Amino acid sequence: MSRERLVVIGGDAAGLSAAAQARRLRPPDDLAIVVLEQGPEISYSACGIPYWIGDLVADRDMLLARTPADFAATEVDVRIGTRAEGIDLTAGEVVAAGGERIGYDSLVVATGGKPMRPPVPGLDADGVHGVHRLADGADIRAAIAAGAKRAVVLGGGYIGLEMAEVLQTRGLSVTVVLADPLPMAQLDDDMGERVCKAMCDMGIDVQTDQPVHEIEVDADGAVRAVRTDAGSYECDLVVLGLGMGPEVSLARDAGLELGVTGAIDVAHNQRSRSHPEVFAGGDCSQTFHRITGEAIHVALGTHANKQGRVAGSVIGGQPARFAGVLGTAMTKVGDLEVARTGLCTTQAEDGGFDYRTEVIESSTRAGYYPGAAPIAVKLITERGSGLLIGAQVVGGPGSGKRIDVLATAIWAGMTAEALAGSDLSYAPPFSPTYDPVVVAARVASRIEQG
Amino acid sequence: MSRERLVVIGGDAAGLSAAAQARRLRPPDDLAIVVLEQGPEISYSACGIPYWIGDLVADRDMLLARTPADFAATEVDVRIGTRAEGIDLTAGEVVAAGGERIGYDSLVVATGGKPMRPPVPGLDADGVHGVHRLADGADIRAAIAAGAKRAVVLGGGYIGLEMAEVLQTRGLSVTVVLADPLPMAQLDDDMGERVCKAMCDMGIDVQTDQPVHEIEVDADGAVRAVRTDAGSYECDLVVLGLGMGPEVSLARDAGLELGVTGAIDVAHNQRSRSHPEVFAGGDCSQTFHRITGEAIHVALGTHANKQGRVAGSVIGGQPARFAGVLGTAMTKVGDLEVARTGLCTTQAEDGGFDYRTEVIESSTRAGYYPGAAPIAVKLITERGSGLLIGAQVVGGPGSGKRIDVLATAIWAGMTAEALAGSDLSYAPPFSPTYDPVVVAARVASRIEQG
Repeated sequence: MSRERLVVIGGDAAGLSAAAQARRLRPPDDLAIVVLEQGPEISYSACGIPYWIGDLVADRDMLLARTPADFAATEVDVRIGTRAEGIDLTAGEVVAAGGERIGYDSLVVATGGKPMRPPVPGLDADGVHGVHRLADGADIRAAIAAGAKRAVVLGGGYIGLEMAEVLQTRGLSVTVVLADPLPMAQLDDDMGERVCKAMCDMGIDVQTDQPVHEIEVDADGAVRAVRTDAGSYECDLVVLGLGMGPEVSLARDAGLELGVTGAIDVAHNQRSRSHPEVFAGGDCSQTFHRITGEAIHVALGTHANKQGRVAGSVIGGQPARFAGVLGTAMTKVGDLEVARTGLCTTQAEDGGFDYRTEVIESSTRAGYYPGAAPIAVKLITERGSGLLIGAQVVGGPGSGKRIDVLATAIWAGMTAEALAGSDLSYAPPFSPTYDPVVVAARVASRIEQG
Repeated sequence: MSRERLVVIGGDAAGLSAAAQARRLRPPDDLAIVVLEQGPEISYSACGIPYWIGDLVADRDMLLARTPADFAATEVDVRIGTRAEGIDLTAGEVVAAGGERIGYDSLVVATGGKPMRPPVPGLDADGVHGVHRLADGADIRAAIAAGAKRAVVLGGGYIGLEMAEVLQTRGLSVTVVLADPLPMAQLDDDMGERVCKAMCDMGIDVQTDQPVHEIEVDADGAVRAVRTDAGSYECDLVVLGLGMGPEVSLARDAGLELGVTGAIDVAHNQRSRSHPEVFAGGDCSQTFHRITGEAIHVALGTHANKQGRVAGSVIGGQPARFAGVLGTAMTKVGDLEVARTGLCTTQAEDGGFDYRTEVIESSTRAGYYPGAAPIAVKLITERGSGLLIGAQVVGGPGSGKRIDVLATAIWAGMTAEALAGSDLSYAPPFSPTYDPVVVAARVASRIEQG
């Protein structure tokens, strides 16, 4: 047989997008596709795990989008429970568990991410969990069912916030322990303070500026408390919400070049810089920031899907490239929606930007319409050019998705003045006459004009 | 006294924005400002009237944003109950009711709009109401309080939809009578059908393709039925939801030039084309479409506010221009959100555009997240360039405001491909991994690429 073979390591967002896109472009008699997934299932939504834990999602299977059988129907051979033990870049082979060597013409490395772990004693105790795989969700659910009463969430990023919320919903008392002075370190302090206040108002105990020293463990090897400089927080459940790092042990051992972020270094077409026949995408790969051009690691399903798709297109013979990220992200804690895009002031500072900031407060709906809630919009604009380079939104229901307007404006290279003049929708149930985004843009452009 | 005087005719969005902005830029000893408002109040939200009728807004005064006293504090002389009877363009004077002549150096005509009225008998009967001034809202509320049971809404645009919903909420049986084949004529038929179905599912009786022939009146002069070719619809309340035309009688009588739309013809700085010392803005003035460049009349508070602000800036000595409209608009009927921007296919056809359309169906949230609802996104792109030129969104809660992303992308001159690559937010409570907007953009760009 002269047909080529694509091997994909990892059966979630990036890997499966690559496989599906390659298949769309090349039929089975031209390209064989094998996907190796070490876990028991593919195509699961890691982002949905907190909501499953919170009983908002009734059944774990709802988090599964596609099955191996779906892929078999297009002659993509998905092998679950099949761990890739090594990559032989010279021979062009993947070594699967058990020793099978699978030759490839193209390889996609989509090994995903891994929860960041603080280097402290006790982290392997019973009762300490990441929120990464469905098994983590099952473990945390089991801990709650077994009577867990007090949880400590380490970290106040997206996963930390979501886990704090759902654990509280499930009746646990929740302490969030942060090394940073505020939750949501991707926000500026003034916006992070709004998030912190909302968490405290919900009854979540937020302990800031406290790097963890130890997970205290009882005689049975179960977690008993989280200890910091300032105190010891008793708990029977610890959740790691410190973010995700790239899972690159396989790539590193094989000799694939890693980038400055520690993730696999790839070109815009997702090809490995050191081995162009190898592609990488998703949480294990490095990407670049749309504004600064600098290397960045962002673990997010949207990027993983797109990057996998780019790899699949290129393998399929259709030129494609990933266009970079703005770091757009969104979450909620209780009724408070939190979103950001582009550069925060720290990033702008680090990047050598001369910038201005402006924060406005407005209302999610016409003030007189039921359910109108406060919303704060912060814009970061480049001094002189007036270009939008960053935005943050914190507010009540309906606030968060407004970040997409700002992400689009930044993506398109709009100035605050141009955005202020744009024609956004208005209806009393959905916005004041001037949408808060427009109010912010107008104030920012007025300041630019002096 | 050598100070100049600005006279503003009309005390709502455009007129007051002009007055406020002029005052910001020029102090009272430099510029006297007089605002004449024929009605009993200023600064009221016409868009909020349906929701007041629907008891969602408890108190009419909640619809009033600012009072004459607020303006008096900045030495803007707002005179309510003061009708402008004429404009003497030669003398530079406004003739107020009672004969007072008020000289001006600059004049802002902001006489607003008036409900469109079909040319049929019976339109002046008791029980026939526009939804334009607060008094209309009070009249309709009084009719409901007096026992009105059956309403006919003429027209299926924004006001028609909103009135149908709130009247039903108040317990009336509602028939919507349309001359068009579908409600929401600003949408393409395939999207309008979704709206029509939702209205029918709510129990609203929608009668299409039926121009009104007569409002039938009983012996007491009260409305009894609405008659069309196809039938006679008994009712005790008729609401005009046929849209707003420009109120230009004063301007026309004075000799100000009107444009092809019948509204006052103004340059981009809101100056009258025939009399540059006169400005016009808001529902009485003509504007231009951002994509086609053609003259258009759009009655909407957002534009009125901006246009008034432009006039006030220019009068204040600061150059400004209105940047045009995309015809972005949004409303809801029940839980269905409806929004559009840019060109619909009819407009694209009329404008000589070579275009493609694409409709996708997706979900407002991650499919597994509670409250996920269907959303349809239609994109209209220019063939060849791939530029986005129009978009329509119809779907469940959270759908409508997504039009702002598309309006921003169109405003910025983005292609579908660029939008497909952009970095929009993702979190399960707020969108699927690929936001529906991105899904639509990707499909549209794939089709463009062939």
